[in-house]
Amino acid sequence: MATNWGSLLQDKQQLEELARQAVDRALAEGVLLRTSQEPTSSEVVSYAPFTLFPSLVPSALLEQAYAVQMDFNLLVDAVSQNAAFLEQTLSSTIKQDDFTARLFDIHKQVLKEGIAQTVFLGLNRSDYMFQRSADGSPALKQIEINTISASFGGLASRTPAVHRHVLSVLSKTKEAGKILSNNPSKGLALGIAKAWELYGSPNALVLLIAQEKERNIFDQRAIENELLARNIHVIRRTFEDISEKGSLDQDRRLFVDGQEIAVVYFRDGYMPRQYSLQNWEARLLLERSHAAKCPDIATQLAGTKKVQQELSRPGMLEMLLPGQPEAVARLRATFAGLYSLDVGEEGDQAIAEALAAPSRQEKTLVMNKHVGHLLRTKAIEHADGGVAAGVAVLDNPYPV
Amino acid sequence: MATNWGSLLQDKQQLEELARQAVDRALAEGVLLRTSQEPTSSEVVSYAPFTLFPSLVPSALLEQAYAVQMDFNLLVDAVSQNAAFLEQTLSSTIKQDDFTARLFDIHKQVLKEGIAQTVFLGLNRSDYMFQRSADGSPALKQIEINTISASFGGLASRTPAVHRHVLSVLSKTKEAGKILSNNPSKGLALGIAKAWELYGSPNALVLLIAQEKERNIFDQRAIENELLARNIHVIRRTFEDISEKGSLDQDRRLFVDGQEIAVVYFRDGYMPRQYSLQNWEARLLLERSHAAKCPDIATQLAGTKKVQQELSRPGMLEMLLPGQPEAVARLRATFAGLYSLDVGEEGDQAIAEALAAPSRQEKTLVMNKHVGHLLRTKAIEHADGGVAAGVAVLDNPYPV
Repeated sequence: MATNWGSLLQDKQQLEELARQAVDRALAEGVLLRTSQEPTSSEVVSYAPFTLFPSLVPSALLEQAYAVQMDFNLLVDAVSQNAAFLEQTLSSTIKQDDFTARLFDIHKQVLKEGIAQTVFLGLNRSDYMFQRSADGSPALKQIEINTISASFGGLASRTPAVHRHVLSVLSKTKEAGKILSNNPSKGLALGIAKAWELYGSPNALVLLIAQEKERNIFDQRAIENELLARNIHVIRRTFEDISEKGSLDQDRRLFVDGQEIAVVYFRDGYMPRQYSLQNWEARLLLERSHAAKCPDIATQLAGTKKVQQELSRPGMLEMLLPGQPEAVARLRATFAGLYSLDVGEEGDQAIAEALAAPSRQEKTLVMNKHVGHLLRTKAIEHADGGVAAGVAVLDNPYPV
Repeated sequence: MATNWGSLLQDKQQLEELARQAVDRALAEGVLLRTSQEPTSSEVVSYAPFTLFPSLVPSALLEQAYAVQMDFNLLVDAVSQNAAFLEQTLSSTIKQDDFTARLFDIHKQVLKEGIAQTVFLGLNRSDYMFQRSADGSPALKQIEINTISASFGGLASRTPAVHRHVLSVLSKTKEAGKILSNNPSKGLALGIAKAWELYGSPNALVLLIAQEKERNIFDQRAIENELLARNIHVIRRTFEDISEKGSLDQDRRLFVDGQEIAVVYFRDGYMPRQYSLQNWEARLLLERSHAAKCPDIATQLAGTKKVQQELSRPGMLEMLLPGQPEAVARLRATFAGLYSLDVGEEGDQAIAEALAAPSRQEKTLVMNKHVGHLLRTKAIEHADGGVAAGVAVLDNPYPV
């Protein structure tokens, strides 16, 4: 989004001074990253890259994104609970893609053994771009939905103060007041806290599956701190740690270092290179366990591109969300039409049959909320890539 | 103060994990220092050293320190406003100590020309040790009073969260709740804001005199941020900058880069090595100006060791704070008896006469507050040295 904040600046010297102030404020607010040189240590740290000014975003698009989030949550849940749909949809992917095949294999094993935990927790982040329509009006178009390890909710809770500071320094007090408050850390933590509570064992812990090299640890700590404030204790372990120290008892309750685990929160395990053979074994152990998983492997599979592609087919949303035409309309309005359809009529027919089969059990929806937003901005020459990859930078929407 | 927190720990591994959590929390809360390698840059930063656990401090001593702070403020003010007392007290020091001599020379010049600003702001930090008496009871003994550039009020506002975190991780929730809240940043900013308001020019700025190499910038930023939140803008400049860009108009109003200055807040200029000839000229310019100084040079002189020594003489407090026997008693109770008296009867007589002379003008006391505390802990082998020097570390009192 184009902005005109730059016109407030008198010269390069003022710009540099403003950037210094913004950096110091970002650091003081905890918008931190470990350095690329020392991603395992917090001895010296740096700040997460961010725009100097907030970006203008039409209020209508923000409201639309908030309004449709609960529909996406329902949709992800419906897909994840529909084993037949997942199997049909992913059947061709599994043949070509080893990563999805291995995830799916664990999914099948768990279903065969019988699900040990009926509390499911999804912390979903739906990503959009603002697309300029032919008539010039902006539209919200979904890029993907992240159903595992969605990041930057922690740091996004700290960035409004930075942009308010920048605008205040320029005596734009009224404008500073328009920067939206945002606290996804708390909302994400409340989801985990609810799963922990439903697990029902006051001494059980939350296990955060972490990477050894984690520049973005402060994003995760923000959620850990919110949980600690509610007397819910979090331990951080890698897949390797689980493989060595994790075990299930006869009721498949999960123990790590002798401590019972109520909720497993994955901040690793979403990319092929994150899995050694040992890590796959650890993942299987976690999935088999009685601990609530955030997410369970079916929810992770529900976030694959192939599923997204399938959902854009005519009639598909209506079948997954029967009797909810308004939700379906809100969802479809955000579909970008990005995906080519590579399945023929026969495939369609098979999936339609799968959908017609009953879902595996009656469920109770305990919580469905939107808890905040994250705006990332990147230069026009980059088609893809996030903040951690050094392509996008953190931003705040300035509603117009 | 001895503590028994260590007994909560099971092993070295738990200690290390707790330290990692504490460090990450300190960083996230903004308990930051620039690195010693790059003291002019915020590109990578580290944390200010701190104790893993809060230290036990008798509540009575904390309450005593709070109760006597306003007496110390009155005393510093009385000394700073009594030119004759300062001259008599410092006469021998001036002959031996070039730094005090130069400060005093500026003080004399300003008095001779006539004070251009009658708003005086002191942000005083009175430092104590906890002394074990012969009978084993602890006593509060004053080491010194800092009347210029007292630091760590900013970071001390952020450390309670760190110790609360540490105790919460150990499930010591009740104990975590006993860590005192502390916000000297805000209190110090409110003092500066009051001086700014009394100056009476809405567009005038606060000038923070900064060092070029400043590891402790985040301590200062905390106060700057509090001022910005009140729409009071702060610019940071070195003495060198003032020497090049500072000027007085015919009414001795201070301008820097064309901007009028309401308040000069010194975070430099308290040590001899901080003054080149150029810097002394800049200091003189600032002192002569109509801007409110925090502190003015007389208040800086009131904080010298020699003055403190003088104040411990019998009858001295009574003369400086006439009609306030309770304040005098509270002050005297904190005197450590550290200072040898090197002035004879003759000196006593001269100072007594100086005190008997009327002070230079009627004053209005606008604000006298205590605004927070700072606990620093050091190993027993270090007699002296602060946090910035790498000797003491930040701590929080745990009242018992």
